Amino acid sequence: MRRALALAVTPGVPLGPNPRVGCVLLAPDGTTVAEGFHRGAGGPHAEVEALREAGDAARGTTAVVTLEPCNHTGRTGPCSEALVAAGVRRVVFAQTDTNPVAVGGAARLRGAGIEVESGLLAEDAQAVNRTWTFALEHGRPFVTWKFATTLDGRSAAADGTSRWVSSRAARLDTHRLRGLCDTMLVGTSTVEVDDPELTVRDEVDEPVVHQPLRAVMGLRDLAPDRRILNDRAETVHLRTRDPREALDTLFARDRQHVFLEGGPTLARAFLTAGLVDEAVAYVAPMLLGAGSSAVADLGITTIADAVHLHVADVHVLQGHDGEDTNVRLTMTPQTTPHRRP
Amino acid sequence: MRRALALAVTPGVPLGPNPRVGCVLLAPDGTTVAEGFHRGAGGPHAEVEALREAGDAARGTTAVVTLEPCNHTGRTGPCSEALVAAGVRRVVFAQTDTNPVAVGGAARLRGAGIEVESGLLAEDAQAVNRTWTFALEHGRPFVTWKFATTLDGRSAAADGTSRWVSSRAARLDTHRLRGLCDTMLVGTSTVEVDDPELTVRDEVDEPVVHQPLRAVMGLRDLAPDRRILNDRAETVHLRTRDPREALDTLFARDRQHVFLEGGPTLARAFLTAGLVDEAVAYVAPMLLGAGSSAVADLGITTIADAVHLHVADVHVLQGHDGEDTNVRLTMTPQTTPHRRP
Repeated sequence: MRRALALAVTPGVPLGPNPRVGCVLLAPDGTTVAEGFHRGAGGPHAEVEALREAGDAARGTTAVVTLEPCNHTGRTGPCSEALVAAGVRRVVFAQTDTNPVAVGGAARLRGAGIEVESGLLAEDAQAVNRTWTFALEHGRPFVTWKFATTLDGRSAAADGTSRWVSSRAARLDTHRLRGLCDTMLVGTSTVEVDDPELTVRDEVDEPVVHQPLRAVMGLRDLAPDRRILNDRAETVHLRTRDPREALDTLFARDRQHVFLEGGPTLARAFLTAGLVDEAVAYVAPMLLGAGSSAVADLGITTIADAVHLHVADVHVLQGHDGEDTNVRLTMTPQTTPHRRP
Repeated sequence: MRRALALAVTPGVPLGPNPRVGCVLLAPDGTTVAEGFHRGAGGPHAEVEALREAGDAARGTTAVVTLEPCNHTGRTGPCSEALVAAGVRRVVFAQTDTNPVAVGGAARLRGAGIEVESGLLAEDAQAVNRTWTFALEHGRPFVTWKFATTLDGRSAAADGTSRWVSSRAARLDTHRLRGLCDTMLVGTSTVEVDDPELTVRDEVDEPVVHQPLRAVMGLRDLAPDRRILNDRAETVHLRTRDPREALDTLFARDRQHVFLEGGPTLARAFLTAGLVDEAVAYVAPMLLGAGSSAVADLGITTIADAVHLHVADVHVLQGHDGEDTNVRLTMTPQTTPHRRP
């Protein structure tokens, strides 16, 4: 199963919209007969790839696969049927597929007399498809909110200048995180004021080939000369102020991971709606004393009502050549009430 | 010398006002004849302690000592004389003593025909007495500014409540850092508003035996019922608004390390005077959106004028039992101009 998990995350496999899946066919003596992994939407599933490679040798093997084989005909046929037809003797899978359109693979296999075992390294398999699993379970995309702040909570100086609060290393890291999402979301006011291109750029500041969807949320019309409307990536304008409605629209478009990059107003809308699943803060060791707040007024008046975040990871982005060292905090909302000692 | 350095930092040796010093007497064959370390102001110096232990066996030895032997008679006699009188053949020391009243030990020893070598592990020796060395070089105490902030730069909610922004682990860590200083400094307004006792407390919230000096800065009179005036530690009222003048007064009282704990106004005075040598920030993963700023308006209007700090250390204070995980950043002022890429 560890080998199957490694196959699933073969470099170059896109993060969505399909789950990443790996499959290994084992002979009764434990030797590997064939391997396969899913290369992204439209391509053959991992099981089918492995079966093709094995040919007749698939008969009597054990299929070890990171996700429950699907039971539906989409752009490809059902994997359960393919496994039955190939004469596979036993199937071991990690994560159960609860996707309504794919569900039922294990039952179909058992019905055909195949021995089925599930749950092996299930947590590792879920981690491989974290946002796919989340979106399936919650019926909406996973939301990562990213913000940059000085040590004293500012995102810009009093005159509006903000280049740069974040260090170059932090900005590069942001592009890396953008590239792990399938959608970047900003508000119409960010488009109006900052006019970002909102593409993922590499170390030499060139846009990468596979770009996430650019989404703009808000009722205001976008001026046609805005850079976000250029042809470097697809763009969608979500004409709503309701975060839940925006996420519903994106989910209907097969979006599973939204990178929230708008200003404080957009962040507040998502925070107060409880629709931030992960917060990534880049803290710059800089003091401004005044200027724009990195986080908008949340309507909190007393310390007991503060939004507490659970720190999942702290990463130091070392500065070079006189650049500031920035600190990245990756956080999740506190699910249990905060205990006040 | 490594052994001498270890002796210097023997647990229990006070951090000031005297430097911590260790000494080892070695026989010509390299075996240890005697060891000594300075136990704090008023006690014998490290060399004298080692010579006493050695008695006649000191004759012909090499004295390895972490600081240049002193050449003056204070509460104890000059160590240079003692080394000469004991018939020590050779002296190896790490850090040169530039203290005007003690200076000249090496010259005195050489004058008496003793072989002298200096500079071995000098940086390590300076690190042992970091603030003593700093105070000697700069003619004022080293200033550590400590502040706690939410991720969005707040020190209290809109209604003034602030218990607790910092986690218990962060508050304990603050007491540990207080205990490493010889002076804690706040402004009169902090005394007026928060009425802190300003003592160093241990893990069970009891005041420790050896308390730093409590200093209050500002022109306003202190109400006699203020907790800072209780008998748990010594307290001094510095009737000035000038940070440099306050530090001069403290230096004249043999103070070498000031822990600045006042509110944003006091911090601003020190920051703008360039009198913060180290900044320690406890960042709580908490959002308030509004409330008091952790850092006062510094008169900075544009990003190019931001105060940049060099991050020396990032430490994660893991939360337990539902407590927030806090992040401590230890920083020094940027000595070179910040390069804007």
